[in-house]
Amino acid sequence: MGVMTRHEIDPATLAPGGVYKLVNACVVPRAIAWVSSRSADGVDNLAPHSYFTVVSVDPPMIAFTSVGWKDSAANIDATGEFVVNMAAGGFEDDINATSTDFPAGISEFDAVGIEREPSRRVIPPRVAQSPVALECRKVDITPIGNCHLVIGEVLHVAIDEATSEPDPVTQRHPRPDAIHPLARLGRNEWAHFGTTFDLKRVPYRKWLEKQSSRGE
Amino acid sequence: MGVMTRHEIDPATLAPGGVYKLVNACVVPRAIAWVSSRSADGVDNLAPHSYFTVVSVDPPMIAFTSVGWKDSAANIDATGEFVVNMAAGGFEDDINATSTDFPAGISEFDAVGIEREPSRRVIPPRVAQSPVALECRKVDITPIGNCHLVIGEVLHVAIDEATSEPDPVTQRHPRPDAIHPLARLGRNEWAHFGTTFDLKRVPYRKWLEKQSSRGE
Repeated sequence: MGVMTRHEIDPATLAPGGVYKLVNACVVPRAIAWVSSRSADGVDNLAPHSYFTVVSVDPPMIAFTSVGWKDSAANIDATGEFVVNMAAGGFEDDINATSTDFPAGISEFDAVGIEREPSRRVIPPRVAQSPVALECRKVDITPIGNCHLVIGEVLHVAIDEATSEPDPVTQRHPRPDAIHPLARLGRNEWAHFGTTFDLKRVPYRKWLEKQSSRGE
Repeated sequence: MGVMTRHEIDPATLAPGGVYKLVNACVVPRAIAWVSSRSADGVDNLAPHSYFTVVSVDPPMIAFTSVGWKDSAANIDATGEFVVNMAAGGFEDDINATSTDFPAGISEFDAVGIEREPSRRVIPPRVAQSPVALECRKVDITPIGNCHLVIGEVLHVAIDEATSEPDPVTQRHPRPDAIHPLARLGRNEWAHFGTTFDLKRVPYRKWLEKQSSRGE
């Protein structure tokens, strides 16, 4: 392939906030954790967080980055519990509406009109119409740079039967082609879901066999 | 909307590893960091990591989870540097091939046939054909559960001119509709990129104005 023409960007040459917007546009597509939490005063918060990933296999832990100290982080710090609801296709307007900077006393569930569903293991409610809910207990809230990483252990998983299939290992496997999970990109950009394909990891032993059969 | 039929999964009822596979299938779609690093012995490693996100805005920091203590984590621990190359559409077979468990002395660049490009601020090379490279310096490697979170500060960004556009804030904005960034799902599933759309966050003040005009 030909040589690429590169634009080389030294973050120090950008205006304040520029490097963040640049990095934000380079870490894509990002899964969206639609996080429900309850304040110590009993107000149910719901907010999207797209800096979200898995941080431990055993015990199973997920984490999201709180940019600034927002209601989600404050509630989870105070009460120790939250739910990650999956951001399914079709919910983009609702999810975006819950990113409005409502005052702490207003519940996004009520302001936006999102139906609650009781959780099994934690106090904060699930989003009734979200196909997957991960009920989590706070493990830690770790400051990193000027943000906080909110880490939770997954205590319980609830999955919609209509958009999942039986699985011998996990009981139910959520079907991305039925859920169309949304993703965030840079700027105000979001991604609709594309198509899926399967690729198996190739063990080194098999790779060697393939190489030697090529050489014959 | 109607009431959903939920499958309720208590992780304790799953076989070992089951809850991990379940959570893995629920945190989707996941951006892929195609991480290059160099060992203390000078061997260039390249491996995909799909537990990857932004962890700080200022200074700009990204992180990926090392499941087990793999070559990437060991190299970054030893040398303090790495590059995150964007996983662009069309590279799926190359990316998957670099996930083969080659012995530490074999470079995935050479074994798979990936072209190197020199970095500007760090020793590990970039992937020459990847449209975005984030050159990073190790900030910390933090144990979480049975994994390690590898945290790096972004020192320099290199962007392909052909698949990006001028931007007043970031100099260049990578165009997802030209790059088609790949994503990982559960099992051996990967996602091709879909379409994009724009949604602006609604400030509370505007939300109030809209509500009051509705009420009139």
